[in-house]
Amino acid sequence: MAGIANTPKPPYYAVIFTSTRTAGDHGYEAMAEQMVQLASRQAGYLGIESVRVELGVTISYWATLESIRAWHADIEHQFAQKMGYQVWYKNFKVRVCKVERDYEFHRITADHPSSTGDTGGLVN
Amino acid sequence: MAGIANTPKPPYYAVIFTSTRTAGDHGYEAMAEQMVQLASRQAGYLGIESVRVELGVTISYWATLESIRAWHADIEHQFAQKMGYQVWYKNFKVRVCKVERDYEFHRITADHPSSTGDTGGLVN
Repeated sequence: MAGIANTPKPPYYAVIFTSTRTAGDHGYEAMAEQMVQLASRQAGYLGIESVRVELGVTISYWATLESIRAWHADIEHQFAQKMGYQVWYKNFKVRVCKVERDYEFHRITADHPSSTGDTGGLVN
Repeated sequence: MAGIANTPKPPYYAVIFTSTRTAGDHGYEAMAEQMVQLASRQAGYLGIESVRVELGVTISYWATLESIRAWHADIEHQFAQKMGYQVWYKNFKVRVCKVERDYEFHRITADHPSSTGDTGGLVN
């Protein structure tokens, strides 16, 4: 959860969830952690990236639109969504996207002796 | 920059930039702010959402793939990208996405008397 998601070659799907919270925890942090664990066991789950500093951005990656629909309809996730509306979120926006291409960069360090070159390398 | 981007009805495009930084600032924060300002003046720019807690996630929204290409090729942005490879980033991944649908929620408060209902409302 803490790093860059190791997603496969596109195409695949991303759900961008951008939110602002109400004041107080009200069980939010525990449920957020539980939802990350639950999502990771769903069919079609590819990874997640999540950061919050007042504004929260959580991006989950999925193999198909059908896997996104199934996750949205999951009964435990439905309960968390209801709590989100009733208690946790001040505002949010959800964007369902098709990832069409990607590229990445990994700096060459002594920790990654299998990489070549000395100024970092681009993959893809 | 600090809130949820007020994007138009889909379809439009998103560039998800997920990164981890090297140690030290080395001019990064000032350049990041300058790039946000510069991006906002580009043709086709629709908004930006950016958060970092070790992992950084910046999502910029664009009207067309052509506007993304033009921003990528901007000479000042090219200089910033070069600094990113040489100095600022440990790892990053860029994903170019088509936003196919979205929906949003705004909690009803006394600050927003024009809203109706008392448990919050969904738009779209």
